[in-house]
Amino acid sequence: MKEDFPTRATIEQALVRLRPHVQLTPVLTSGSLNKIADAELFFKCENFQRTGSFKMRGAVNAVFSLSDEAAAKGVATHSSGNHGQAVAKAAQLRHIPAYVVMPENAPRIKVRGVEAAGGTVIFCQPTLQARQETLDKIVQKTGAEFIPPYNDYRTIAGQATCAYELLEQVEGLDFIIAPCGGGGLLSGTALAAHYFSPSTAVLGAEPKNADDAHQSFYAGYIIPSNNPSTIADGLRTSLGDKTFAIIRNYVQDILTTSEENIVLAMRFIWERLKIVIEPSCAVPLAALLENRPEYLQGKRIGIILTGGNVDLDDFFARYYQEFVLDN
Amino acid sequence: MKEDFPTRATIEQALVRLRPHVQLTPVLTSGSLNKIADAELFFKCENFQRTGSFKMRGAVNAVFSLSDEAAAKGVATHSSGNHGQAVAKAAQLRHIPAYVVMPENAPRIKVRGVEAAGGTVIFCQPTLQARQETLDKIVQKTGAEFIPPYNDYRTIAGQATCAYELLEQVEGLDFIIAPCGGGGLLSGTALAAHYFSPSTAVLGAEPKNADDAHQSFYAGYIIPSNNPSTIADGLRTSLGDKTFAIIRNYVQDILTTSEENIVLAMRFIWERLKIVIEPSCAVPLAALLENRPEYLQGKRIGIILTGGNVDLDDFFARYYQEFVLDN
Repeated sequence: MKEDFPTRATIEQALVRLRPHVQLTPVLTSGSLNKIADAELFFKCENFQRTGSFKMRGAVNAVFSLSDEAAAKGVATHSSGNHGQAVAKAAQLRHIPAYVVMPENAPRIKVRGVEAAGGTVIFCQPTLQARQETLDKIVQKTGAEFIPPYNDYRTIAGQATCAYELLEQVEGLDFIIAPCGGGGLLSGTALAAHYFSPSTAVLGAEPKNADDAHQSFYAGYIIPSNNPSTIADGLRTSLGDKTFAIIRNYVQDILTTSEENIVLAMRFIWERLKIVIEPSCAVPLAALLENRPEYLQGKRIGIILTGGNVDLDDFFARYYQEFVLDN
Repeated sequence: MKEDFPTRATIEQALVRLRPHVQLTPVLTSGSLNKIADAELFFKCENFQRTGSFKMRGAVNAVFSLSDEAAAKGVATHSSGNHGQAVAKAAQLRHIPAYVVMPENAPRIKVRGVEAAGGTVIFCQPTLQARQETLDKIVQKTGAEFIPPYNDYRTIAGQATCAYELLEQVEGLDFIIAPCGGGGLLSGTALAAHYFSPSTAVLGAEPKNADDAHQSFYAGYIIPSNNPSTIADGLRTSLGDKTFAIIRNYVQDILTTSEENIVLAMRFIWERLKIVIEPSCAVPLAALLENRPEYLQGKRIGIILTGGNVDLDDFFARYYQEFVLDN
């Protein structure tokens, strides 16, 4: 199985394919966060990525690696979050249709994002079964190519380009910590470090409330989460067979963290770095601060901030009420 | 009077004085905001500045231009906002004491900011008279040097460095829009453009609810606002004689905008640029979108985002309640 993994060349090809379509996102640092963490932290800001998340990288790589003939029929996916927006945008860039199956209860900001990128949203019941059936029907009817959100080597190779860039932007990283949902980003990150900076170890980070990767990592086989409840909505998914195999081989450990510490870390990042990030992004910093493993002390640590698509409706509704309506 | 204005050389000296102590802040752009504004916008992100605002520039220039003898007695100022934090931080960098007079009702985040930088906070009643009396007493007792928040050439020259940097970072700007409270940033911006990029015109932007600069600009004499109520808390101050004289000479126009549009523009910036900015920062974009003067159409426009010290207590209290306590 191991020889199937995306190779060094596959990731380099993905980089070339992506360059015209994705942002080279900046790396931010904060003296005060370094003090709190007792380490040198380098935040790779994929919240500034097009469509607001790293998912753009996997989607662009997958969509642009299709033959013209396959592409003409369009692409389809299911997503309650950023992957849907990314596939819609990548399809728009290739001038082909995108069909995105979303649960009825998907956050409004994500639905708006798919539509803004010209994607067609097809709502379904919020169950795995309904999602699969709806997607199957769309694919059958249109002939569209399914672009999986993580358990797919095209997606993984695309997402690996984020760590590749980070390793170019910051010299001598001892560690990179990436959050882990389905494991696409984490496995891509692990492959990028393995090929391009073997002295950089890769850690995963997960909410305790959705710790299937942690459990699977130690059990040696996949133990999926069952409908987990966590604020980190991007990390509720469980590992796939492809991502798990890479993670087992190339990831050093998977740290977990409480909901309370996720909110705290999210606040640290908003207040100190002055950037808008999703709760899922805060999980690596939260896990670092909660566990404080000795081997991280004083080290140079890259942290991938995965996205910035937070629903600000309530925040601005309060502002509007307080400062416009009440005055 | 005109010959008193900070000169080209004064601003260049300020730049040299500042460089070791302030961040070269990045410039961000957004395709979707360009479409909305029908112009090319370049956002100079002083929300990423040390202490979270451009005020650091004026404070560092003033504090580091003092003689060793004067500096030894410390510095003092009054501030309900970012200037207090900036003076405290600049004093800390020069290892001298800072006394900051703040109204009892100052936002918590600003008080915490002064204290975090090692400044001594002295609370007073929230009136101009109490503020002045309290400051006078401190200065008399300690011999500290008063660092005015805007109506001071050292402060103005320091704040001018922000536009200087922006003009170096982005070529061929047709306009720069800066928000206007006391007018320190706007007058510094106007001087920087005048000396270093004469083809760049400078506009001010103000809340309609605190439009003293707009009124004074057209009347030809200072008409102060009387206790104005606006969400843009950094812009409630009125012009001083020094800032007004520069603005009259070197600013092209002062646009105004409603509270509603300030909240809307703030939201645009949070959602599209994924950065945390104060309401005051949103005023230039709000004024641009509200007035849409024809001469701005299709132009290259620099917008100074002044600071990012927003009180996020309520936002995170809700998050905490919803995702930690309720689960």
